[in-house]
Formats: sequence, structure tokens, C-alpha cells
Amino acid sequence: MDRTYISDLGQKIGEPVTMCGWVDVRRDHGKLMFIVLRDGTGTVQVVINAKHASAFEAAQPLRSEWTVRLTGTVKERPENMRQDEPNGSIEVSVESVTVLSQANELPFEKDADLNLDTYFDHLPLTLRRARSRDIFHVQATILQAFRDSLVSWGFTEFQAPVLVGGDAEGGAAAFKIDDYYGKSAFLATSGQLYKQIMVGPFERAMTVAKTFRGEKSATTRHLAEIVQMEFEMGFVNDHRDVMSVLEDVMRVIVGRVTEKHADVLKRFDVESPLLPKNSFPIFKLSEAQEIIEREFGGKAMGELDLEPEHERQVCEWAKKEHGSDFVFITHFPTQKRAFYTHTDPESPTYSRSFDLLFRGLEINSGSQRIHDYHELVNTMRSRGLDPEKFAFYLQAFKYGLPPHGGCSTGLERITARMLDLANVKEASAFPRDMTRVDTRLANSEE
Amino acid sequence: MDRTYISDLGQKIGEPVTMCGWVDVRRDHGKLMFIVLRDGTGTVQVVINAKHASAFEAAQPLRSEWTVRLTGTVKERPENMRQDEPNGSIEVSVESVTVLSQANELPFEKDADLNLDTYFDHLPLTLRRARSRDIFHVQATILQAFRDSLVSWGFTEFQAPVLVGGDAEGGAAAFKIDDYYGKSAFLATSGQLYKQIMVGPFERAMTVAKTFRGEKSATTRHLAEIVQMEFEMGFVNDHRDVMSVLEDVMRVIVGRVTEKHADVLKRFDVESPLLPKNSFPIFKLSEAQEIIEREFGGKAMGELDLEPEHERQVCEWAKKEHGSDFVFITHFPTQKRAFYTHTDPESPTYSRSFDLLFRGLEINSGSQRIHDYHELVNTMRSRGLDPEKFAFYLQAFKYGLPPHGGCSTGLERITARMLDLANVKEASAFPRDMTRVDTRLANSEE
Repeated sequence: MDRTYISDLGQKIGEPVTMCGWVDVRRDHGKLMFIVLRDGTGTVQVVINAKHASAFEAAQPLRSEWTVRLTGTVKERPENMRQDEPNGSIEVSVESVTVLSQANELPFEKDADLNLDTYFDHLPLTLRRARSRDIFHVQATILQAFRDSLVSWGFTEFQAPVLVGGDAEGGAAAFKIDDYYGKSAFLATSGQLYKQIMVGPFERAMTVAKTFRGEKSATTRHLAEIVQMEFEMGFVNDHRDVMSVLEDVMRVIVGRVTEKHADVLKRFDVESPLLPKNSFPIFKLSEAQEIIEREFGGKAMGELDLEPEHERQVCEWAKKEHGSDFVFITHFPTQKRAFYTHTDPESPTYSRSFDLLFRGLEINSGSQRIHDYHELVNTMRSRGLDPEKFAFYLQAFKYGLPPHGGCSTGLERITARMLDLANVKEASAFPRDMTRVDTRLANSEE
Repeated sequence: MDRTYISDLGQKIGEPVTMCGWVDVRRDHGKLMFIVLRDGTGTVQVVINAKHASAFEAAQPLRSEWTVRLTGTVKERPENMRQDEPNGSIEVSVESVTVLSQANELPFEKDADLNLDTYFDHLPLTLRRARSRDIFHVQATILQAFRDSLVSWGFTEFQAPVLVGGDAEGGAAAFKIDDYYGKSAFLATSGQLYKQIMVGPFERAMTVAKTFRGEKSATTRHLAEIVQMEFEMGFVNDHRDVMSVLEDVMRVIVGRVTEKHADVLKRFDVESPLLPKNSFPIFKLSEAQEIIEREFGGKAMGELDLEPEHERQVCEWAKKEHGSDFVFITHFPTQKRAFYTHTDPESPTYSRSFDLLFRGLEINSGSQRIHDYHELVNTMRSRGLDPEKFAFYLQAFKYGLPPHGGCSTGLERITARMLDLANVKEASAFPRDMTRVDTRLANSEE
């Protein structure tokens, strides 16, 4: 008999079915054994009655995470046994059990509250938890919505490289490969230079880039390997054209997550992100600092960036006053932004840059870029960067780039805020940081 | 006036328009200047008549790759001047010219036939060539078709990590980061172990993984950084279930490329890939070797794999006899495949493995995998691998994985064969190999 996926069982009431999956939970009630069966599409309750002797016997050794093929009949549950969840009103009465693979006894209870290190130590098992599956289903949807929306607006996806010749931006701590065919190479800290180059061929370019940061940071926000969703577009008037596309992307992402994963949002006890009817609120950094001081007290004015606490405050205020979980902060001091950032001609100590905050966290950073070759070279020099080291990149400008701008969204950060995860590492399936690459570094071998 | 994209000009005949773009080519005919203008959506011919004095004057300095904003009126070309190409029957008569950015004189003629090294040295410029834009538009479509088809069949995308703790498969030459927070780390040679792990949470998992191979190979097929389109699925009967999904993916890719890029295929003088009405032809390695000896002479039988020349021959034969540009080769000797490959129980020196050849080149490799924990550990030991070093990965098996299988398609390889590119490096926007990371290594600085 062809296999039926668990999500399709509701359409087969009264029919015989064969299912494959993992034993999620097993409970014994004398002559009845109850199993929650899990496959890639969902879970369902299965009952094995002792009167089906060979099935009942075959089921005796079953424990959590064993995989099985089960054949039985789909039945409606008695009214008083129904649950308000997928397949909550059906169960499958099973008459045949085939074990496909066994599992060791689990090192902890299925739903035990684990500390993060234990959770990460056992990812090949713990990623199977409902909570983890939810997180990464939502993450896949976010990524897909990002790509689909930009493709529909004329952006072309390209592959930004991971291996680069130097630590391009000069600021971030880049990981180094000491022996790259006898020379050295580095891991990209951003796809920035490449997406600017790709404005030349495509005008509108996007990439989902793996980026790497070796800072010695142990905060809940630091990952050594990050997925950046980046886009760059030509012929902009200023940074606001980029913000406008970004806002549209965010609206598609929120719409898609809300539509596909209402059940997940409910399980995580979070609301669908609040979107204002009109545009996302936009404040210059100095305006945001005024709001923070006025509404929350403390000292913010004159700082070159927002402290994490200030990001949370301005978001709290924007939610209350503007009905928005998203806030743009613009016009950061030029000296605080990367060398390629365009200044604001009206006030050159400030830049045509922005951050997008989402529920208290900066999830995106962008700007209009310098497009004039000579201005870019001069800016590099004024910052102590050697244009010679950027000769490859600078060709894009030598041979004509229009006014352009772009931005970069951290996939793990937006996922974490979407589901209110306390630590961004939970939004990386295989997080890398100061302390671990799969296993903890203290225990790792050279 | 709002900007009109070049691809939309055909709908605006007789109307005033503003366009932005690059000067692709400029030609002077006395009192008429002709410009081919290029934006992200296409090209169009523009005419500037000396009678529009200020526009004509502003246009005088224009050279290839300058970027401009032009305002004018869309006109139909005289019958005898029409070309059979997009916008071939219109031109825009321009009355206003604004220069947005300048470009240096190009280092070579726009369409000069360049050797590959010169081409790669100047990628920020040469990626703008029509040929390069075509290649990477097609590549973006291939990737999108891969993802869309698998998502529609219930696969969930995840992010395989780049940073890994060890050279997992023990065979490939992995690049090493000597100082990863005081320990060492490596770059992934494949997403294999992670996609097997992700069968646990998702049953059907896919990833577009950056992978890295440090072999000292200078062939036209070697790249140090590769994009692998990978998927893995649970509850398979054997490798043929994987092949069946892969074949469907290839049919979607071919369909999408043919539909969206008929013009590109024409410009590259290649046919749309030939698909057999029934399934792709499948030969065991030994059968393929027989065919090669019988049809082409030479020595093939008994070899553990196909030589590149033999791959070309079996493809040539399959195209002639089966009307297919795709051929599956199965049952490679177990000893030649990775440790996780499932043997064929009927003949254990052979494996439930396959390669997919496309137009003479292996573009995909896959198999059913070992799913039993003890069998996997024993196989590792028999191959001299230390199961301790795989402890993280092995948890997936300790805690129950069903029979599963998967495969991996090289994005650059399938792109190269789709467009008949002589060198796979041309299908990587920023190719990395023994000799270069953007710039040539001989010239690179430590």
C-alpha cells in the first residue's frame, strides 16, 4: 500500500493507510498502546489494541525515536477525546507494525527543559523537538519570502564568495586560512563588496551570503557564522529608496509567516508582528535619542550609535505610538559606518545610512553607497585603508557604477525576534561561536 | 517623470519616458549619436539628434559604462531598420541627458575575445558582458527551480554550516583555519553529514551549501569553492527513490530554463536539453562499461569509476539511443564511494549509489545511506576512520534514523553543461582555484 503522509490522514477517515515515521511518545494502557507518530508533515495518535496480537507484540520494544512502518485504519476520535490541534479529531487503529530502525534510550526526557549547552551538544536529537522544528520551518519561510519578493521585483540572485583575499572592511575580525595553496585567504565578513560589483551586471542584485565574524564576543547576539540576506540596487535617489524596498520585503515576510505558521506563533505565544497601515516609522538617530531621553530618561544624546537597551526602548515607544514592531533609524554619524557609506550632503558628518530595528533588535543595516571612484578612493585613504588592496573591487567604480544602495538582514536575528527567542544562537541550526563547532571547543581535538 | 525600465518601453510607443542605465555602446553619425543603453532589464537603441542641442552637447563626453538618466520619446523604427531581438523594432529619441557617473576608458574592446585569465582579472567589468549576464541569469533560474520544486514536494530548506570541526570524510583536502578562537576548524567539503542529521527533524531536507576542496587540481572542472544543491529524504526503499525525485527536479530545471531563457540558449547556440518521454536511462557501471567497450572500443570494464572520456561516450550513446541528455550510472564499487554509502545487499561489493551524467559530465552524485548505527560505526572502523571524531554526527543514528538517501548537484557544473561552457570556472561569478581569489595569488599579499 502506498504511504500516506500524516498531514493527509484527515482526508482518509474510514480508510486503510500505511504510514512511516518516528515514535514520538509511547504510552501503555494495559491492552491498549498509544503512540504519537511523527513524520515530516506532522504527528498523529496511533492506537494498537492487544487483540491485534502480532502488531501488539511487534510494538512492545518500541521507544521514542524508533522508526516504523505502520498499517491501520483512520478513525474519528470520540467527541470528548478531540484536541484542538492538527489531527486532533482522528486516530489510527494499527494492525501491522514493522520496525525500520532502533534508537538508544534518550539521554533526557523528550520535553525536558534543557540548558542551551546541553541542547546544542545533542542537536542531532534536539533539533527533532517540536520547538526546534517550528523555529526552522519559520526560518525557511522567511528566507523563501525574502527571495521570492525580491525576484518578483526584478532582483537577480548571485553567489557571494566565502573565500576572500583580505579582510576587506578592515574592521571585523576575519578568520584566516593560513595555507590556501601556499598563500593565505580569509573568510568573508560580508557580501558587501560583491553585491556592489553585481550592480554592474544586474542593476538589482541579491545574495544569501554566509559571513563570518571572529570577535571574542560571548553575548546572546554573537554567532561566528551568520546567514546574511543581502540586496543592492542601482539608480537610487538616496537611502530611502532602499528602505522602501526593504519595508516591502518585511511586509511579505511577515505576511507569509503569519499565513503559513499561525499555529507556530500560537505555540510560541507571540503575536504576528505589528505593521503600521502607512510606512514604518523613521527617525534620525538624533531624534531617536531625544525620544529615549524624553520617554525613558537616561543618557542617549550625542552617542554615535544606540545601545541595545536604547534599541529596545525606541521599539517599545514606536509600538505604542505608531503601532509598529519595525522602526527605521537613519543618519548615523559617518565615522561610525563603513567606508563605502554615502554622507548626507546636507550635513556631511551624518550619513545616508539606516538600521532597521525589529522588536528591540537591529536586524538590518544599510545605506546609500559612495558611487564615485575618486570619492571612494579618497575616503579609503582618509580611513587608513590602502586602495591598492581593493584594486579588484575598485574596478566596478572605475568603470561606472550609478548611485546605488543596499542592505543586509541577519537571518538568525529576524528569526529570533519573530519567535521571541532569548538567544539568537537558537535560530542557527548548527551555531558556531567562541565555545563550539558542533562539539565544545574545550573538548575538541586539534 | 517616473523611470521606465527598458523591458517596458515596447508598451510606451509614442510616449515620453525617462530611462536610467549604462552606455553600452556609442556610435556617432554626424548630427546623430546612437547609444545602446543598458539597464537591469535589457538594452535599447537611443538616438540623440543635434537639433536637441543641449542633450547633444551633454552626450558628447559619454563613453561605454558611463551611467546616465535620459528623457525622450519612444518611437517605432523604420521597417527596414528592425532587428529580431527585444526592443528591436523601437528606439528612443532623446531630448535630455544627465550624467550620473563617469567611467575610465575600458582596458579592452567591449566584445573582445579575452583569454580566461584576463576575463577573471576584470570581473567587475567583464561580468557586465551580455554573455556573463546570460550565464548568471540562467544560473539563478536553475537554483530557483531546484528550490521551488523540492519545497513543493515537502522538502524544508536549512543552512548547512561552512565551519566544521574536522575533515569529516577523511578523503578530500579540506582548508584549515589555524586559529579558530585558539583551536582549529575546517571548511566543509560537503553538507552531507548535516543533511543526514536534518532527516531527523524534517524527513525531507535540502540545502544550498557552500563547499570547499583544496585539491591541487588545475583541470577545467576544479573550483576551490563550489555551490552544492543537496537534498536528503527519509523512508526510502533504496537509491531509486532518490533518483526519481532527482529526475523530477531536473525536469523542472530544464523546463524553467527553456521557458525563461529560450533567447539565451539561442545566443549560446545550444539546444534545450533532450528529455526522454519515459524515465532517464539507467545503467549499472558494469553495463555502461560494456556499452563503452562495444560502441567506442578502448578499455573500460573492471575500472572502479568512469574516466571523463567514458562519461562523454556513454552520454553520446544515450542521447542517440534513448533521446536523453541525462544518464544515470548506478552500482559503483562500494570501496570507491564514501563511508556512509549503503551496499547493495544482493551484491555487497557494489553500492546503492548513482551518478547523474548530463551532456558528458557528472553533475550529481548520490546514494542510499547506511542508517543502522552499528553498521555505520563498523564501516567507519573498517575504513580507518575514528568513530569518536564523528560522535556528534553519530547521535543522529544512535537516536533513530530511517532508511534514507540523498544526492548533491554541483550548481556550476549543471550551469556549465546547460550552456556548453568549456570551463566550469566560467559558471562561477567569482571563481576560486589554485591560482586566484579575485586577483591572482602570485600577486596577492599575505
